[in-house]
Amino acid sequence: MGDLSIKVGKNVVMGENVTIESNVMIGDNVVIGNYVVIKKNTIIGNNVKIGDLVVLGKEPASNKKMARKPNTKLPPLEIKDGVTIGCNTVIYYGVVLHEDVLVGDISSIREDVVVGESSIIGRNVMVEPATTIGRKVTIQTGCYITANMIIEDEVFIGPCCSSANDKYMGMGNFQHKGPIIKREAKIGNNATLLPGITIGEKAIVGAGAVITRDVAPNKIVVGNPGRPLG
Amino acid sequence: MGDLSIKVGKNVVMGENVTIESNVMIGDNVVIGNYVVIKKNTIIGNNVKIGDLVVLGKEPASNKKMARKPNTKLPPLEIKDGVTIGCNTVIYYGVVLHEDVLVGDISSIREDVVVGESSIIGRNVMVEPATTIGRKVTIQTGCYITANMIIEDEVFIGPCCSSANDKYMGMGNFQHKGPIIKREAKIGNNATLLPGITIGEKAIVGAGAVITRDVAPNKIVVGNPGRPLG
Amino acid sequence: MGDLSIKVGKNVVMGENVTIESNVMIGDNVVIGNYVVIKKNTIIGNNVKIGDLVVLGKEPASNKKMARKPNTKLPPLEIKDGVTIGCNTVIYYGVVLHEDVLVGDISSIREDVVVGESSIIGRNVMVEPATTIGRKVTIQTGCYITANMIIEDEVFIGPCCSSANDKYMGMGNFQHKGPIIKREAKIGNNATLLPGITIGEKAIVGAGAVITRDVAPNKIVVGNPGRPLG
Repeated sequence: MGDLSIKVGKNVVMGENVTIESNVMIGDNVVIGNYVVIKKNTIIGNNVKIGDLVVLGKEPASNKKMARKPNTKLPPLEIKDGVTIGCNTVIYYGVVLHEDVLVGDISSIREDVVVGESSIIGRNVMVEPATTIGRKVTIQTGCYITANMIIEDEVFIGPCCSSANDKYMGMGNFQHKGPIIKREAKIGNNATLLPGITIGEKAIVGAGAVITRDVAPNKIVVGNPGRPLG
Repeated sequence: MGDLSIKVGKNVVMGENVTIESNVMIGDNVVIGNYVVIKKNTIIGNNVKIGDLVVLGKEPASNKKMARKPNTKLPPLEIKDGVTIGCNTVIYYGVVLHEDVLVGDISSIREDVVVGESSIIGRNVMVEPATTIGRKVTIQTGCYITANMIIEDEVFIGPCCSSANDKYMGMGNFQHKGPIIKREAKIGNNATLLPGITIGEKAIVGAGAVITRDVAPNKIVVGNPGRPLG
Repeated sequence: MGDLSIKVGKNVVMGENVTIESNVMIGDNVVIGNYVVIKKNTIIGNNVKIGDLVVLGKEPASNKKMARKPNTKLPPLEIKDGVTIGCNTVIYYGVVLHEDVLVGDISSIREDVVVGESSIIGRNVMVEPATTIGRKVTIQTGCYITANMIIEDEVFIGPCCSSANDKYMGMGNFQHKGPIIKREAKIGNNATLLPGITIGEKAIVGAGAVITRDVAPNKIVVGNPGRPLG
């Protein structure tokens, strides 16, 4: 922290053993927990709260088998004013968390993801790369948000929902396409969304449903495979 | 740790870099891992084992969107004699873990939760607030236990089960009510329990079942939606 | 780290606050993150990368209720050349990670597990004891891999899949037997596999399917309970 390239605002409260890499910017009135790692170039706004045992600005990794190499040319992690991040959470570079976003404990957000203002990412939520999450979205505890997915404003996703983007399951050479969830749609707990489907505006997906086709706006679908209710 | 308000018993083994806030009490023969954060007022009994990278006594957070503000008037976290806690786990204040409870790695228990004697909370289990878990309960790895849920003694919940408490999925102003699981009931892996249902004594829920209605005692239900077997 | 029984190779980059217990061996060109705990006897090869806030070589725990006591006579954790491990991950002793394996963030692998060359264990994956994972296997984010399971080479398991090994759900005295997934089989996201079933070579399990019986090679099964497609 003696690094001149690190800028720290006023009234910042640091926990014990905070590791800050070069070129990090921290705003005013920020609270940072204990045993936190802030990787290079990370930008933290004002009034941000970060829990204990958190990693911010991680670079993606890969091995020989992995078909999709991670994008290493992304901007740094940017955490806007008033964001709160829980404990034991890992957020990659190339992520933007807009004002007042809440990210729970034991969660992780991969690179190239935007989360809109006042959205909630619950505990133990995993978000994959290149996904866009709107404003005032609720993603409850234990959800899996696949890559290349679009979640519009005010969507509600119940606990433990799962989504997929790879119709051919690792056979490669096909374009990955995650689900699109339109404004104000609601997804029940432990629902399963298949690649490329669209859930229409204000549609409702029942708990435990397996959604294999598009759902029209305002419709309710339940079951496996998902069918209109009634 | 020079704080006079911290009381530490005999034969306590501390890892490297343990952060202990004010007014914490630690019993005899306690083993605490490395990079552990113990928040203010936490009470730890005798013969307790705590893994590495753990947060104990966390205060809940919220943002502007969140309808239910967390209860900030709860008692401290109390960990009774003989409890074992895994690594990278986060436990909130207002939790009581009774004697001989085991909590696995990478789990989290929110505020206002009681876990009865000798129960097992597996790895990567998330427990929401205001839930009661009985004695000799097994909650296996990856389960999601919603808020306002009652789990009676000797219940067995297989891996990755999910439960919900909000029939109207975030529309607000409705009372949240989690499932009730009665004594000795058994829930198969990846089952989905809807809000407010009751699983009767010694009933069995099949793996992957979606339970939308009450299950009578001793009955076996399977499928989506769950129906009596045979 | 002044312990003479610790051997560290050339060009090793250590983060801040790395806790290394006795008799640990670390190869050349290894990168270790911050706030990492390496338990006694752990063996780390060359060109290994370890993230922040990781625990390596953990001993299993148990309580009075637990029927299956953990095996305490296993060899140490062995991490072969070129392995990459994410942040906030917990790996037990008695595990072998072969060359070029990638383990994601917030994952955990219990004791007595072998992972073959170039396999990928995603983020937030939990692997139970006594399971064998072949070469070039992909286990995507959020999967639960039960104990006593066999996953052959080049299997693909989509996100959030769940498996079980205990037909009698905690009643004890029965042999636990996890699923067997044969070469090149593919499992869709959030599928549920029951104890003891076999998924044949190149078979495909649909997303959200609940598999209660064996699946023949090259077959496609979907639904709850899983049935052949078409």
